[in-house]
Amino acid sequence: MKGCEAIGEAAIHAGCRLFFGYPITPQNEIPEYMSGRLPQVGGVFVQAESEVAASNMLYGAAGAGCRCFTSSSSPGISLMMEAVSYMAGAELPVVIVNIMRGGPGLGGILPSQSDYFQATKGGGHGDYRLLVLAPSTVQEAADLVIEAFDLADRYRNPVMVLGDGIIGQMMEPVEFKRTVEPSELPLKSWATTGCAGRQRNIINSLYLKPEELEEHNWHLAAKYREMAREVRHAIYETNGDMDVLVVAYGTVARIARTAIDSLKEKGIKAGLFRPVTLFPYPTEALNETASRARHVLVTELSTGQMVEDVRAALGKRPVEFYGRVGGMVMTAEELAAQIEKLAHAAAV
Amino acid sequence: MKGCEAIGEAAIHAGCRLFFGYPITPQNEIPEYMSGRLPQVGGVFVQAESEVAASNMLYGAAGAGCRCFTSSSSPGISLMMEAVSYMAGAELPVVIVNIMRGGPGLGGILPSQSDYFQATKGGGHGDYRLLVLAPSTVQEAADLVIEAFDLADRYRNPVMVLGDGIIGQMMEPVEFKRTVEPSELPLKSWATTGCAGRQRNIINSLYLKPEELEEHNWHLAAKYREMAREVRHAIYETNGDMDVLVVAYGTVARIARTAIDSLKEKGIKAGLFRPVTLFPYPTEALNETASRARHVLVTELSTGQMVEDVRAALGKRPVEFYGRVGGMVMTAEELAAQIEKLAHAAAV
Amino acid sequence: MKGCEAIGEAAIHAGCRLFFGYPITPQNEIPEYMSGRLPQVGGVFVQAESEVAASNMLYGAAGAGCRCFTSSSSPGISLMMEAVSYMAGAELPVVIVNIMRGGPGLGGILPSQSDYFQATKGGGHGDYRLLVLAPSTVQEAADLVIEAFDLADRYRNPVMVLGDGIIGQMMEPVEFKRTVEPSELPLKSWATTGCAGRQRNIINSLYLKPEELEEHNWHLAAKYREMAREVRHAIYETNGDMDVLVVAYGTVARIARTAIDSLKEKGIKAGLFRPVTLFPYPTEALNETASRARHVLVTELSTGQMVEDVRAALGKRPVEFYGRVGGMVMTAEELAAQIEKLAHAAAV
Amino acid sequence: MKGCEAIGEAAIHAGCRLFFGYPITPQNEIPEYMSGRLPQVGGVFVQAESEVAASNMLYGAAGAGCRCFTSSSSPGISLMMEAVSYMAGAELPVVIVNIMRGGPGLGGILPSQSDYFQATKGGGHGDYRLLVLAPSTVQEAADLVIEAFDLADRYRNPVMVLGDGIIGQMMEPVEFKRTVEPSELPLKSWATTGCAGRQRNIINSLYLKPEELEEHNWHLAAKYREMAREVRHAIYETNGDMDVLVVAYGTVARIARTAIDSLKEKGIKAGLFRPVTLFPYPTEALNETASRARHVLVTELSTGQMVEDVRAALGKRPVEFYGRVGGMVMTAEELAAQIEKLAHAAAV
Repeated sequence: MKGCEAIGEAAIHAGCRLFFGYPITPQNEIPEYMSGRLPQVGGVFVQAESEVAASNMLYGAAGAGCRCFTSSSSPGISLMMEAVSYMAGAELPVVIVNIMRGGPGLGGILPSQSDYFQATKGGGHGDYRLLVLAPSTVQEAADLVIEAFDLADRYRNPVMVLGDGIIGQMMEPVEFKRTVEPSELPLKSWATTGCAGRQRNIINSLYLKPEELEEHNWHLAAKYREMAREVRHAIYETNGDMDVLVVAYGTVARIARTAIDSLKEKGIKAGLFRPVTLFPYPTEALNETASRARHVLVTELSTGQMVEDVRAALGKRPVEFYGRVGGMVMTAEELAAQIEKLAHAAAV
Repeated sequence: MKGCEAIGEAAIHAGCRLFFGYPITPQNEIPEYMSGRLPQVGGVFVQAESEVAASNMLYGAAGAGCRCFTSSSSPGISLMMEAVSYMAGAELPVVIVNIMRGGPGLGGILPSQSDYFQATKGGGHGDYRLLVLAPSTVQEAADLVIEAFDLADRYRNPVMVLGDGIIGQMMEPVEFKRTVEPSELPLKSWATTGCAGRQRNIINSLYLKPEELEEHNWHLAAKYREMAREVRHAIYETNGDMDVLVVAYGTVARIARTAIDSLKEKGIKAGLFRPVTLFPYPTEALNETASRARHVLVTELSTGQMVEDVRAALGKRPVEFYGRVGGMVMTAEELAAQIEKLAHAAAV
Repeated sequence: MKGCEAIGEAAIHAGCRLFFGYPITPQNEIPEYMSGRLPQVGGVFVQAESEVAASNMLYGAAGAGCRCFTSSSSPGISLMMEAVSYMAGAELPVVIVNIMRGGPGLGGILPSQSDYFQATKGGGHGDYRLLVLAPSTVQEAADLVIEAFDLADRYRNPVMVLGDGIIGQMMEPVEFKRTVEPSELPLKSWATTGCAGRQRNIINSLYLKPEELEEHNWHLAAKYREMAREVRHAIYETNGDMDVLVVAYGTVARIARTAIDSLKEKGIKAGLFRPVTLFPYPTEALNETASRARHVLVTELSTGQMVEDVRAALGKRPVEFYGRVGGMVMTAEELAAQIEKLAHAAAV
Repeated sequence: MKGCEAIGEAAIHAGCRLFFGYPITPQNEIPEYMSGRLPQVGGVFVQAESEVAASNMLYGAAGAGCRCFTSSSSPGISLMMEAVSYMAGAELPVVIVNIMRGGPGLGGILPSQSDYFQATKGGGHGDYRLLVLAPSTVQEAADLVIEAFDLADRYRNPVMVLGDGIIGQMMEPVEFKRTVEPSELPLKSWATTGCAGRQRNIINSLYLKPEELEEHNWHLAAKYREMAREVRHAIYETNGDMDVLVVAYGTVARIARTAIDSLKEKGIKAGLFRPVTLFPYPTEALNETASRARHVLVTELSTGQMVEDVRAALGKRPVEFYGRVGGMVMTAEELAAQIEKLAHAAAV
C-alpha cells in the first residue's frame, strides 16, 4: 500500500469519517483516496475553497465532537496557521498530516523535512503546542495516524503527523491493527452536539478578561507538560559505546540505518537515535544514549532545524550536522562517508 | 507620540510609501495613521480583503522594488505565514510589524509576547528566517522601524518588528533621526520595474529542479548566518558580578529595570540583559554577561518561549523563568520579589 | 410545517443528499434544518466559507452526478452569479432556492420580490436562462422543490425556486407526494463518476474555439426554447368577462385572492392570473385570459419588475402596476382599493 | 490609440485617480495601462485578491468621495454583482467598464454582447438600475467614459460602460475633449471625508425599518425614472420610409452601416437605429423611427437579449432577430443578406 493511501485508510480505521482539504502536491493521493473511500463508509469528503476554509471547517467539525482530519503540504499548512492556533486555543482534537515539500515559498514538490520548526515550536501565534509524530515506515505511518486520533481526543489538542514526502509515495505492506466505528467512540461531553436537555456547550478561543485568559494559558501549558508522558523514540545499534550517534527522524532514519550497517565491516560503531515524537522531544533518552557516543551527528532534509533541539538537549557538547535540501535526499553512501569522517575525528 | 503613530511615521521617514493591511486590535492606530498620512506624501494605503490578501500585495509591491510594510496583531500575522515564507523564499525586502496580543486563537486584546517562536523560528514552512527586532521604548520603536527598512533592503529579506502591545499604546517623546525620500533610495537592480532596454527580472519562489532549489536554500542559509553581524543587545547594571541576571526583551525589560533599581537598597545586585535582535540572537554576549551572574532569570509575557533560546545559549546551567500571560503584565514589585527569592537561593 | 422546513424536507424526498450554503436571514431555517436532517439520511451538509465557495461546491457535486442544492437570500444569491452562469454553461442540474429579502444592497430582512429580473433574465453573464418556479403556498413550495430536481435533471440546467420571504416563515400542513431514494435515480451518463472502463467525461464551460462556443450557445438557446413546454400558471375567478385581471405571483397572489373575494359583494368582477413558472413565462395563457378583462393590474413586492414581462406579453395595451417594497407588504384591503379604483375607470 | 488604452486615459482626463481590479482577458490592457499611468499622475492602482475584493474597494473609495473605476470582463463582472447592488443601494458614483466576452461560464475570450440583460435589468438583487452606455467607436468610448464619471456623480449611481470586445482591441485616433483635475471637482457633501467640524456622514445600504427602506426604494425608483432625460441614440440613413430598420448597438452598429451602404445600389433602403444608452432605453425615438420602416431587424452578438427591449417598445408588431455568438462576429455581407431577405418579404 502506498504511504498516502495507508494514512487515509488508517484514519478510517480510527473512526474518522470527515476530511476537509485542498489539493497540493505531493499529498494529493490522500484527498483522492478519501474522496472515494469516505462515501463508502458513510463519511464526508469536502474540498474547500482554500486551506484557510478547510482548516476552519476542521474547527467546526471537531467542535461538534467528530473525529476529523486534513492533510496538506508545506505552503498549504502555512495557510492553516491561524486556524491551528485557534484549534489549540479552543482545545479541539484534530489530526493534521503534513507531507513536507521543499520550501520556503512554493519551493519544489520533492521531499523535505524543513517544516520541523513550524510543527514543533508553533507556526501560529500564542503559547500553544502540537503533539508531533514522525513515522519512518508506511506501517508506522498507519499506526501513528490511528494513535493520533486517540492522542488528539485524550489531550483535546491538535496532533500533527509530520511526513517527509518519501513516506507518502513509498509502497510497503500494511496491517491495520485496530478498527473502531464512530459509534463505538466515547461521547465528548464538551462538544456542541445540540443542547436539548442540558446546558449549552461553548467552543471558543476568545477570552476578553485577561485573568481568565491567563488561567486558560497556564492550563494549556500544564497540559503540554503532561504530554511529556507520550514521548517516544526508537534506537538502532546503540548498545555499548559508539563512535558516532546519528540522530534522524522519518525516512531519513532509514537511510541512516543502511549507512550504519555499511560501516560495521570497517569497524566503525555507529548507532541511531530516532525521535518518534518531535514534540514532546525525547530529550532524556537522547541524553542518555548520546552519553555513550564520542560524536553526535544530526542529519535532516533541512538546513538544520531539529539540530537545535538536539543541541538544547545535549548542552554545550559539540553536535555535528549534515543536511540536504530542496528535494535532494542524501544517499546511504553519502551519509556513511559523513559518519566515517566523524568517527576518525578526535573526540571533543 | 503614541507608539503606534511613531511606528507609522517612522516608516514614512524611511521612505516607505505603501501600506497594505487589515484591521485588528490592538494595532489599529497604525493603519489608521497611515490611511491619513500616506496620501499627504503621495503614498498609498490599501485595506485589503484579509491579511492573506494584504501579505500577497506586499509580495507584489516589494517585488516591484518599493519599500512597503504591513502591521497586524497575532491572529492576523498567522494568516500571513504562507506569504511570509514566500517573501523569504523570493528574497523580498518588506517590514512586518506585529503588535502581539494574547493567544492562542482569538485570545484577548491585551499585551503579550507569545509570538516569539513564530517570529524567530519561522511560523511558515521551509528553511527561512526573519530578522526580528524588539523595541523597548517608543523612541527605539521609531529607530528600529527606520532601520528595519535598511536591513530588509540590505539582506533582501523580510524584517519583523515585534512589539508587545504595551509599546503600541504608550506615549513618549520621539525624534526621527533620519528622513529619506523614496527618490533618494538606491535602485534595486533585481526588481520588476519594467524591462524596457534590459533583460527581464523574475521574482519567484518556485524551483522545480531540486538541484537549483538546494543551491537556493544553501544560499539563503548562508545569508541567515551573515545576519549574525547585525546582532544587538542592551545591558543595564551588569558591571561586575551579579546575584541575578534578568533576561527580558521589549517593554518587559523596562519593568525589569525598575525592579532591579528597587533591589539595590536591599543590597541585591541584579543586572539586565536585553536582546534587541531576537534573530539573530545575541548568544555570545549573553553567555559572557551570564558568566558573571550566580543566577539567570528569564521573564516574558508568555508561558516560556525565549527561555528556550537562553537555555540553548547557556548550555546545561539552570535558567529560571517567570512569566505572565493572557494580557496580564507583571508589576515591578512582583518581578523584584522573584529576583530577590532567586538571589537568596544557593548558586547551582 | 414551516415553509423553510418544508423546502428542506422536500429536497430530501427528491433524493437530494447534499446541501452547500452560507447563512443569511431570512432563510437560515433551511440550512439549519438540513444540517440536522441530512446526516440522518446519510447526506452531507456543508457550510462553506462564503456563497462564492458554496456555489462552486454545487458545481463540483452536480458535475459528479449528485442531486444537490443551496438556498440563500438576495445578497447571497448575487454572490453566486458567476457560478450560476458557469453551471448553466456547463449544463449542470442544481436547485437554488432564493428566499428574497428587501434590497438593493444589504437592504432589510423582510419579504420582497425584487430579484425577479436577476432570476428570470440572468443575473450572471452570457446567454443563459434558469427555469424559475414561484410557489404560493407551503404545499406548493414542497411540490415545486421536488419537481425542481426533476426539471434540473431533465434539462441539465439550474432551476431556481423563488420564494418571497413570507413563504419561508409561514406554517401550513404539508404532504410530500413522492419519495425517491438516491439509489433509485437514473444514472447520469455524462457525469464525472470515475472513468474506469469508459471514456472520460468532462464538465467544462470553457470553449476557446469560437465555432464550438457558438454551437454550444445555440444548443443552449434551443434548450431554453424547449423549456417553454414546462410553462405553468394558475387562475382564480377568471371565467367570463372581468373588470380587472390581477397578475401576481408567490404569496402576493394569496393577498390578491382575498382582495378579489372581498370585491364580489360590491359587484366588481376581478380575476387572478398567477404565473407559477416565471421563466418560461406563461405569455400565451396570460394573453388569452387578459383578453376578457377591461383592465390589467400587476402587483408585486417590488418597484415593478414582472410588470415588464406582462407589458411585453400584452403589447401596447395599458397595464397598471401597484407595488410595495422594502419589506412592506400590501394588505388585502389596500389591494382591493386599487382594484376597485381601476374597475371604475373607463376601459382604454 | 487602442480602445482599452483610450478608456483608461479617458478616466484620467475625467479626474479619476483610482483603479481597483483583477486581470481577465480581453481587457487586461486597461489595468495594465492604469498600473503604469496612475502613478504618473499621483493616482493609485490596486490589483485586489479577486473581483469581489476589487468591487468592495470601489465601494469604499466612492464612499470617501473619490472618482474611481474598475474594468473587467463577463465572469469578472458577475463576481461583482453583490457589490454593484450595494453601491446602487448606497447611491455611490462609480464607473464600471465591462468588455464583454463569450459566455456563459468561462466561455471564450472573443467579443460578445451577451451581458446585455445583466447590465440593463440588474444582475444583482433588488430594485436598482445602472446607467448603461454603449460606445461604437474608440472616440465614443473615450467620450462616454469621461461622461460616465459626470453621470455617476450627477445621479450618485454606478454607471456601466458596456463594450463588446472588438472596441477594446481596435485602434483609432482619439481626442480627449476635456481634462479635469481631481482638485477641480466639486466636493461631495455626503461623502465620508472625515467629520471634523461637521456631522458624520454615513454610507450604508442597510435599512432595518421597512418603512425607511420602502421610502429609500421609491426614492431610487424616482431617480431611475429621472435618468430618462439622459436617453441617447444615433441614427443612420433613416430619413423617409425604409424597407428595413436595423437596430444594433456597439461595434455591431458599424457592421450594420457597411451592410446598409452595400445595399443601396440594389435599391434596398435600410436604416440604422443605434441606442447609445441601453438604460435608459431610447424607446420613444425607436418607436418613431420604426414607424417609417416596413420591417425591423435587431442584430446582436447574442442569442437575443436587446431584442426583448425592442419588442417591448414596438408592441405586437413583428421584430426579426439575427445573432452570432460565442466570439463569432457577423460580416457585413452576412448581415446585408439578412436585410435583403427581409426587404423582399411582405410587410406584416
